[in-house]
Amino acid sequence: MKTRIFNARILTMADSRQQTTADRKARPDSLPPADPEIFPGELQIEDDIISYVGPSAEEPQEIHWDREIDAQGNLVMPGFKNAHTHSAMTFLRSCADDLPLQEWLQQQVFPREARLTPEAVYWFSRLAIMEYLTSGITANFDMYMKNQAIAKASIDSGFRTVLCGSINDFGGTVEEIEQEYLHFNNLHGLISYQLGFHAEYTTSPAILQGIAALAHKYQAPVYTHNSETRKEVAECLERDQKTPTAYLDSLDMFDYGGGGFHCVHMTEEDLEICREKKIWVITNPASNTKLASGIAPITQMAEMGIQLAIGTDGPASNNCLDMFREMFLATGLQKLLLDNAAAMDANEVLSMACVGGARAMGLTDCDALEAGKKADLILLDLHRPNMQPLHSISKNLVYSGSKENVKMTMVDGQILYENGQFHIGVDPEEVYAKVAEHTENIFRAK
Amino acid sequence: MKTRIFNARILTMADSRQQTTADRKARPDSLPPADPEIFPGELQIEDDIISYVGPSAEEPQEIHWDREIDAQGNLVMPGFKNAHTHSAMTFLRSCADDLPLQEWLQQQVFPREARLTPEAVYWFSRLAIMEYLTSGITANFDMYMKNQAIAKASIDSGFRTVLCGSINDFGGTVEEIEQEYLHFNNLHGLISYQLGFHAEYTTSPAILQGIAALAHKYQAPVYTHNSETRKEVAECLERDQKTPTAYLDSLDMFDYGGGGFHCVHMTEEDLEICREKKIWVITNPASNTKLASGIAPITQMAEMGIQLAIGTDGPASNNCLDMFREMFLATGLQKLLLDNAAAMDANEVLSMACVGGARAMGLTDCDALEAGKKADLILLDLHRPNMQPLHSISKNLVYSGSKENVKMTMVDGQILYENGQFHIGVDPEEVYAKVAEHTENIFRAK
Repeated sequence: MKTRIFNARILTMADSRQQTTADRKARPDSLPPADPEIFPGELQIEDDIISYVGPSAEEPQEIHWDREIDAQGNLVMPGFKNAHTHSAMTFLRSCADDLPLQEWLQQQVFPREARLTPEAVYWFSRLAIMEYLTSGITANFDMYMKNQAIAKASIDSGFRTVLCGSINDFGGTVEEIEQEYLHFNNLHGLISYQLGFHAEYTTSPAILQGIAALAHKYQAPVYTHNSETRKEVAECLERDQKTPTAYLDSLDMFDYGGGGFHCVHMTEEDLEICREKKIWVITNPASNTKLASGIAPITQMAEMGIQLAIGTDGPASNNCLDMFREMFLATGLQKLLLDNAAAMDANEVLSMACVGGARAMGLTDCDALEAGKKADLILLDLHRPNMQPLHSISKNLVYSGSKENVKMTMVDGQILYENGQFHIGVDPEEVYAKVAEHTENIFRAK
Repeated sequence: MKTRIFNARILTMADSRQQTTADRKARPDSLPPADPEIFPGELQIEDDIISYVGPSAEEPQEIHWDREIDAQGNLVMPGFKNAHTHSAMTFLRSCADDLPLQEWLQQQVFPREARLTPEAVYWFSRLAIMEYLTSGITANFDMYMKNQAIAKASIDSGFRTVLCGSINDFGGTVEEIEQEYLHFNNLHGLISYQLGFHAEYTTSPAILQGIAALAHKYQAPVYTHNSETRKEVAECLERDQKTPTAYLDSLDMFDYGGGGFHCVHMTEEDLEICREKKIWVITNPASNTKLASGIAPITQMAEMGIQLAIGTDGPASNNCLDMFREMFLATGLQKLLLDNAAAMDANEVLSMACVGGARAMGLTDCDALEAGKKADLILLDLHRPNMQPLHSISKNLVYSGSKENVKMTMVDGQILYENGQFHIGVDPEEVYAKVAEHTENIFRAK
């Protein structure tokens, strides 16, 4: 299968600007970062792999193309990576809003999650994948339960998912995590798996030590919710006389890196640990806003050279799965936090949403548009009023972009979404009906 | 022209919930507000006026319909009202980001605005109107310059615009404002005009007194930028020993009501004045975020019974014109500000974006779906993943809604936007080309 996307504007993201803020901090007299280069050209794909990115040949090539897509001057760029989510929580969207985090978890979320079947998780995940596609997201880092059902939802949709271990005191054993690690990393090209546990506050020391041992056995990174709320940090300090980051680090959890989801309430020492151990911070600005958790200090993190990525969190706490919203908030909330309209440059946020996410999740073959990388990419419509005029395409994306601009989403060389239509092996109305049916079953039960 | 929209879910917004927070404050034991009623039915329109809203007749009516629209179970509701904007500033989108407000105004905005021609304002406004339509916005409250060009852009597009006087020390006389008031309120059914001036900090006492005199002469409300930044308030206190709100009130500016755009930094006394004088607060959460101006205390305002509406502000400071983003921020930022996930109920925000905006702008014939009101309405697609499942349609709109859900936008009985296509009397590509041409002329000049 040979595909050619021509007449495009191309943003490869191959020159990651992830370190720009740190560079600037080191040289305070330097200019603000320039926009990333966007050039006219074409992109060629063989099956699931990009085979060429660059200017179009002056003489037409004598190649038989199975598909030729005229991009009409629109933008081709790497897909966004949703680096933290709980996809199947779509079933709780807009049914438990406006509550504090702990009350929300204990009263609204946990009792209903206890009634989830694998089939329910499958359909709830398929719905989330549809929403990712509408937002130009080509991979997700999914921490939930019933991973076999999640993997099947992704494979059946043609979507790329990195599963994250979610063990805690209420479910799972270290042995099961090891089995999952071996199983899902050898199951299917679209699926991979990273070691993880739910959170310090839900997981006993014995399990945490078991996960740390696995990290050393497989020289693997470990991911977890970290310092999302003030309460969580205060309770950890009381229990262990350490912050969650310091406590987990004292168990040698992050000797091969890993990541923290949220990281809203971090001390200077916590941030030093993240930098030293190359722990990714995956920020979730919409969820932290809606649950009143706070604003993560990502400008400070970026200045320190800490690696950053962006996630939507689950649809029960956001409530939507939209990387455009997250990007606006990732820069906007920093301006509010620091009382400085120049805080957190838009181009760095764009990089976090693509390159950062891919690398945080271990998807280094999906982080940029380059020959040899996976064809996980999006076509964004610039012929819409919110993208005009074209002073800065990259800033337009971060400050003005929306789902209306997503013309096409391609994962692993397959077009899964195009002009508002889904090509995911199932009728959207069937997904909605199945979601409604399973949701009703869960809510009807007492 | 007889139109029928059938097979719809209908949200009339006729029972405004604007006062709900104040009610709850008065009775702290009361339950959170319920979702507004949404019922299955149909809507009939004769020319520009709604003639019927309610259940479908059991026996089909023997009426010849010029248009019959099957809503396919989707939502019909009043259009959003953008209660503060500077439409023509589209030409500055993404060209002057990440600067403090005063620097941004003085260095990036004012010198370029000085080169605006009426034709440029016309095309820049047409672009903004297209963007409003994609976001389900059916009317705007536009404060800018060259009002004749703005009015022509709206009339040519079929869009509804309330012009706002923008006099200040750098342009306009009180006589011109009075002429505009009389001219634009008698020009065309789509155009109206409210008295206004740019801001206390740009307008000398003589002009302010002249505007207050006009307010009394015509028993009319007056609108202005108010207390957007800390700096503005501090300087007013130094100059006049009063806050902007108190100072303007001391000139009898608001004896017939009016409104303040932004109102971020308000004292208790300021809020009391707003309540007593029935001064609308028009909040602009995305702009206040992006320019690091702060978070307006709209929860406190709502508790006091102050009337609230929402605006996008101009596209140079936002940078987009999207009521869905504004609604999420209007509730989300309150949760952050008050450290309370229950702050600012989503249903109240939805009401502000429709009913509140219409009433703030004086468009009381466009504030709800009722027989006799103007047919300014939108059809929102619920068959999209971000709207599923349907636990709460109104909360889905506020927390998860996006431009992708806007299937159709109707103004004054005319469909101006449907399924991604514009019906505004001009090819979108022509608008983009004209905008590019005029933008280039302005930026090229030294």
